[in-house]
Amino acid sequence: MEDCKLRWERESGRKVFDCPVFSVNECVCRSPDGRRRTYTVMDLADWAIVVPVIESGGEREFVLVRQWRHGSQEMSLEFPGGVFESGEDAPAAAARELLEETAYRAGNMRKLGEFRPNPAIMSNTVHIFLAEDLHFTGAQALDEDEYIEVVRVKPRELIEGMGRPPYVHALMGSALALYLKDHPRL
Amino acid sequence: MEDCKLRWERESGRKVFDCPVFSVNECVCRSPDGRRRTYTVMDLADWAIVVPVIESGGEREFVLVRQWRHGSQEMSLEFPGGVFESGEDAPAAAARELLEETAYRAGNMRKLGEFRPNPAIMSNTVHIFLAEDLHFTGAQALDEDEYIEVVRVKPRELIEGMGRPPYVHALMGSALALYLKDHPRL
Repeated sequence: MEDCKLRWERESGRKVFDCPVFSVNECVCRSPDGRRRTYTVMDLADWAIVVPVIESGGEREFVLVRQWRHGSQEMSLEFPGGVFESGEDAPAAAARELLEETAYRAGNMRKLGEFRPNPAIMSNTVHIFLAEDLHFTGAQALDEDEYIEVVRVKPRELIEGMGRPPYVHALMGSALALYLKDHPRL
Repeated sequence: MEDCKLRWERESGRKVFDCPVFSVNECVCRSPDGRRRTYTVMDLADWAIVVPVIESGGEREFVLVRQWRHGSQEMSLEFPGGVFESGEDAPAAAARELLEETAYRAGNMRKLGEFRPNPAIMSNTVHIFLAEDLHFTGAQALDEDEYIEVVRVKPRELIEGMGRPPYVHALMGSALALYLKDHPRL
């Protein structure tokens, strides 16, 4: 089917809520066959997620972070990552989050891909990186309100655990799917 | 590290925005060492995503839907899915979304797992199902504002395409990660 049979046009937008994490906009949109409808969409900064892989005794391990999550009200064990700071590009944000949350610096970092965390209602992008050749720098540099434990987990345990606690973060599954493209036999 | 060193307590919440898709709450929370801070979190209904697999000429194919996404302002090719309707449980929501968006009914449907779409700022859960033994019922039953094309894609093409257009939906990657747990050699 041609795109023009599926594509909407956004005619106008109006901000209806704002907070430090996101803003909410009501947008009037026109359907492929000319009908108008209002949609609620959120603007947010981009995010970075890092898949840090470390060699340990001939085996690979993921470096994960365990922390409390305020939205879902539970503990989560996940890849390090976070929100871009003002003016940062994706590689800088990924390297900073990895260093701050885990105290590891990567000798080798490359982008695996990117996704829209929720293209139906959110405008932003999550950029996913692989980090290898990791060097421990000594100490985390956590934000004042971050309480994070660093945990090393074998790939098989992570893959088998996906989709149930403590591996509850959906974007961690998205990142793992990209990692598995290049490493199907883990 | 013990959970009590990482876990926060939510002391109070106050609704600051509401719309049909979500509400926004400011929540005062107490850190593991007794400091107070306010977090913005969203309440939303749960979502279902279905991984529909069809046999065709001895080969497996995924049944995907192509549609415009208002948050990211682009076309997206993704697994069918959507928001729970009032009173619905996860299997019912998954079966309904599959039928409405693709016109397929599944003879065999089982849950692969669940994730928090964004545990930092959202309270809800996405439930992911595998649908097999698919029977075509004749016609989609789309909502008034849904314009959806059904597309069949080979697993290898989907896996290789993940993380770049048109495979932009992060939760599709999450669902694929669960599917690959059981099908590592695709």
